[in-house]
Amino acid sequence: DFPGVDIHEAHDFFRQYYAENPDAPGSLHRRMVEVADELNRYGTYAHTEDELAFGARVAWRNSSRCIGRLYWKSLVVRDRRDVTDPYEVFSECIEHLQLATNGGKIRPTITIFAPPAPGRRGVRIRNDQMIRYAGYRAVDGSVIGDPAQVEFTRAVERFGWLGEGSAFDILPLVIDGPTGPPHVFEIPRDAILEVPIEHPQHAWFAELGLRWHAVPAISNMDLRIGGITYTAAPFNGWYLGTEIGSRNFGDTDRYDLLPGIARRLGLDTSTERTLWKDRALLELNVAVLHSFTMADVTITDHHTESERFLMHLEREEKAGRSVPGDWSWLVPPMSGSATGVFHRYYDTTERTPAFVPRGAGCP
Amino acid sequence: DFPGVDIHEAHDFFRQYYAENPDAPGSLHRRMVEVADELNRYGTYAHTEDELAFGARVAWRNSSRCIGRLYWKSLVVRDRRDVTDPYEVFSECIEHLQLATNGGKIRPTITIFAPPAPGRRGVRIRNDQMIRYAGYRAVDGSVIGDPAQVEFTRAVERFGWLGEGSAFDILPLVIDGPTGPPHVFEIPRDAILEVPIEHPQHAWFAELGLRWHAVPAISNMDLRIGGITYTAAPFNGWYLGTEIGSRNFGDTDRYDLLPGIARRLGLDTSTERTLWKDRALLELNVAVLHSFTMADVTITDHHTESERFLMHLEREEKAGRSVPGDWSWLVPPMSGSATGVFHRYYDTTERTPAFVPRGAGCP
Ligand code: HEM
Ligand code: HEM
Repeated sequence: DFPGVDIHEAHDFFRQYYAENPDAPGSLHRRMVEVADELNRYGTYAHTEDELAFGARVAWRNSSRCIGRLYWKSLVVRDRRDVTDPYEVFSECIEHLQLATNGGKIRPTITIFAPPAPGRRGVRIRNDQMIRYAGYRAVDGSVIGDPAQVEFTRAVERFGWLGEGSAFDILPLVIDGPTGPPHVFEIPRDAILEVPIEHPQHAWFAELGLRWHAVPAISNMDLRIGGITYTAAPFNGWYLGTEIGSRNFGDTDRYDLLPGIARRLGLDTSTERTLWKDRALLELNVAVLHSFTMADVTITDHHTESERFLMHLEREEKAGRSVPGDWSWLVPPMSGSATGVFHRYYDTTERTPAFVPRGAGCP
Repeated sequence: DFPGVDIHEAHDFFRQYYAENPDAPGSLHRRMVEVADELNRYGTYAHTEDELAFGARVAWRNSSRCIGRLYWKSLVVRDRRDVTDPYEVFSECIEHLQLATNGGKIRPTITIFAPPAPGRRGVRIRNDQMIRYAGYRAVDGSVIGDPAQVEFTRAVERFGWLGEGSAFDILPLVIDGPTGPPHVFEIPRDAILEVPIEHPQHAWFAELGLRWHAVPAISNMDLRIGGITYTAAPFNGWYLGTEIGSRNFGDTDRYDLLPGIARRLGLDTSTERTLWKDRALLELNVAVLHSFTMADVTITDHHTESERFLMHLEREEKAGRSVPGDWSWLVPPMSGSATGVFHRYYDTTERTPAFVPRGAGCP
């Protein structure tokens, strides 16, 4: 059911829009009259293309968990609010991936599909990211592939999808249009750039057959702008190495590779005190950064991204804005205290426009 | 000035004391009548020895930033509330260090000195930890020793203390009695156990001349129990390796050793992407854990302590108590996501009895 539009949130948004865009056509007052009128007639209202782009960029700027915000102004915004048909949504997703991948020189991009309206469901993408690897749980409880995707993999199998059973099967996209059941689409291989993981010193590393996709594209968060909730607005940046090397590969409830890597490295795992986990983690992260660099695929390391973020803080403060931040997400999951972001506090005020967990935007 | 005793905080404390110690002599009601009477007559009241020990242990249990709380019940509590003379305070501090050091088998210990009373200042130790290394700033801005101690070092120099100028000069204790100026005392060398730092693989590491003291003993926090503020209550645990290897040695505003270690390791420091900082940090931490182990001095690593803390959580929950926790302090400053404490949330409610920053307990 359509939850309605909060006119106060709309007002806050337009006040910010006109304050930060003094050259925008019209005026805050005239625009609010227009919006109120649209709300009265249709129960919702439409952003202009410029408002939409501004809203999406500011939603990124407001993402307190994101360390990559220095480039918020350069977000490529693809306005696809006219698209509701699942087939078309799918083909726009593929185009998004191709434009964003850009042969390896990754471009931060967002594609915004039709939001819900009175009497009409919004588009939804059920995958948490557009590109993810399937996870298959065997009878003995062990998992092949990504354990975080076991449940989703089961769901798409119920829709008739069948993976190859490898550790790196790309999951299909599952898309809901305004009506009818979800549609399942296989992503064409040429829309997905992947990087085989090798290590600059250890030749055996390549034999592990590890790989990861180039583009992290979150597809299950609502984008909330001026009281409107865009239920399908997949966005991507480029990877911070630790997301792959520490979290996706290292977490015990993900690929859990530390024990295996430690064994190949010949580390003494008889006691935690040798810091074998830390060494395996380091080599994994070195391998990820090295492999992406060799493959000419944009990636960043946590030291560089920490410095960039501190630069972002400075720039924003110069622009008279305070930067919302969530320490526990901004600090990288390895070598925390060796990065500048560790050694300060952040403003924890939440702001809109914002990306919010699915459903959280709808009271 | 004596701020007075909050009778509600006293009441809360005694309620908790009798609830957790059903065999304690007397009863909540009788004890409260007694305390109210004492407050009326003297403006303050005295804990029994058992109440004091319980209060100190629970203050540790309530320390939301402390990952080492599994052993809270075993805290050795030294009741020295009768001690106010700076010379005696000093000799009790030395005895504390000797008992706590215990030849390397470190015992978590607290010594509680005379609190303030109406018309009488409490004892205070001005050092932030009983054992710390001096920091000397040269005219070119560089620092020999611990940069975190530059200000304190200047202060003790104004009191006439003169250090040798090495990177590891032990600072003297600066103690305030109830009246008069602070007294400065050199800690005898035999009260301080130190560990020379060497690396299990790299022989050159020992040539760096690094060392660290065995006992971390915080001496500048107020201990607040039942409305009474103990202004001198130095306590110690044993070290978690990262406190030395990552923070004291690695932080850029402390010994800042990563660049030097990286050079000796021959790492490629031309780009952050080689993760040379992470590798230098790892070798430093390996060296610290190895050296303490070889010297038979109690130390723990972040993986082990994380597991212990999760066990503590379980035990406490079984006892019907929720464990207050501060994520950003509990998660170790290296390899965060490789530890269990990273992957959960904590109850952030603050509780008393508590250790609080000096002065924070006095409104
Ligand atoms: C350009 C490169 C980018 C980098 C290096 C980057 C980095 C990161 C990292 C490391 C996280 C934490 C992820 C985790 O621990 O799971 C994160 C979270 C986040 N980022 Fe970025 N990001 C980038 C681009 C973007 C873009 C383009 C947007 C939106 C337009 C965005 C919005 C967010 C949001 C909403 C979160 C929180 C996700 C959640 O709550 O699960 N980021 N980012
Ligand atoms: C037995 C071994 C212990 C270990 C391994 C341990 C570990 C730690 C660690 C790693 C920290 C964070 C330090 C930092 O990052 O600066 C900490 C903080 C703390 N610990 Fe423990 N601890 C131990 C014993 C104790 C004891 C005996 C007490 C008190 C009786 C205590 C009370 C505290 C308090 C109050 C803090 C916060 C200090 C502050 O706010 O600066 N700990 N502990």
